[in-house]
Amino acid sequence: MTDDLQSRLRASLRAIPDYPKPGILFQDITPVLGDARLFPAIVDALAAPYRGSGITHVLGIEARGFILGGAVAVTLGAGFVPARKPGKLPWKALRETYALEYGTDALDMHEDALPEGARALVVDDVLATGGTAAAAVALVRRAGAGLAGCAFLLEIGVLEGRNRLPEDVRALLAV
Amino acid sequence: MTDDLQSRLRASLRAIPDYPKPGILFQDITPVLGDARLFPAIVDALAAPYRGSGITHVLGIEARGFILGGAVAVTLGAGFVPARKPGKLPWKALRETYALEYGTDALDMHEDALPEGARALVVDDVLATGGTAAAAVALVRRAGAGLAGCAFLLEIGVLEGRNRLPEDVRALLAV
Repeated sequence: MTDDLQSRLRASLRAIPDYPKPGILFQDITPVLGDARLFPAIVDALAAPYRGSGITHVLGIEARGFILGGAVAVTLGAGFVPARKPGKLPWKALRETYALEYGTDALDMHEDALPEGARALVVDDVLATGGTAAAAVALVRRAGAGLAGCAFLLEIGVLEGRNRLPEDVRALLAV
Repeated sequence: MTDDLQSRLRASLRAIPDYPKPGILFQDITPVLGDARLFPAIVDALAAPYRGSGITHVLGIEARGFILGGAVAVTLGAGFVPARKPGKLPWKALRETYALEYGTDALDMHEDALPEGARALVVDDVLATGGTAAAAVALVRRAGAGLAGCAFLLEIGVLEGRNRLPEDVRALLAV
């Protein structure tokens, strides 16, 4: 990951005040994804630390984690596993419930998504409080698979989400 | 696209009866996505017809179209544009409404997602009635961009969705 790529990434984010609710400055990554030079470069940078480390599956978190996760999986020659919002998967699923500021949410993964001997990388666009990513990690572990790490495009440093995750947590840019 | 890849794809689909409602035989593609040999091969087969044809952007349809679309975009060295369910995009968006069996649904795309001179490929997992894909095509045209075609993993032939779409419609497998 070069300083140049980090600067281009930072310059391409679109900050949207008071979205999705007052007081929140939302980082819109769609200009990053839509840039034909930047999108392949960030996917390559997300995948690079894991090349040759035996990743068999990339677990992408719905919905924006699907975009980056699918691309990272192809780059690593791995399979892709969707971690979906509850009730969206058509077959038998494991479910992990996690706390939100108000209430709870959950993440589902098919029971047979990670076979014995699998080694998974969790991918999402933004690491905020870490609740969703921690649920994804829990799904990997409940399936009996190995965890290679968690990779994000952005990390909201002040929320300290990485403290809720195991050691290998990488983000291309902290905002 | 080889016969061998088509056979492997067909063999990896999981048919789920009466999902999401009685009488529907749902084709679950997650075993295809999760296969580390098959997933990169199908992404390559989806992208292959468009290599060297000047695709600048891949428009992926939420949610499973994000998985394939992101991977196809990286393979083609293009940017990725999400076509999202209504109200999910944080910035100013174009909206296309389309008819369902009962009621309507809609698809949103950021106003500035496809700049002047863009040439877009629409990607989704399954072509069924074609309503969603036709809405995606309409968004591409309203943005003033060129349309390279529409690419799908599966096509439900009996529903004749391709009749609602412009000429270049490709699916890796008809079921």
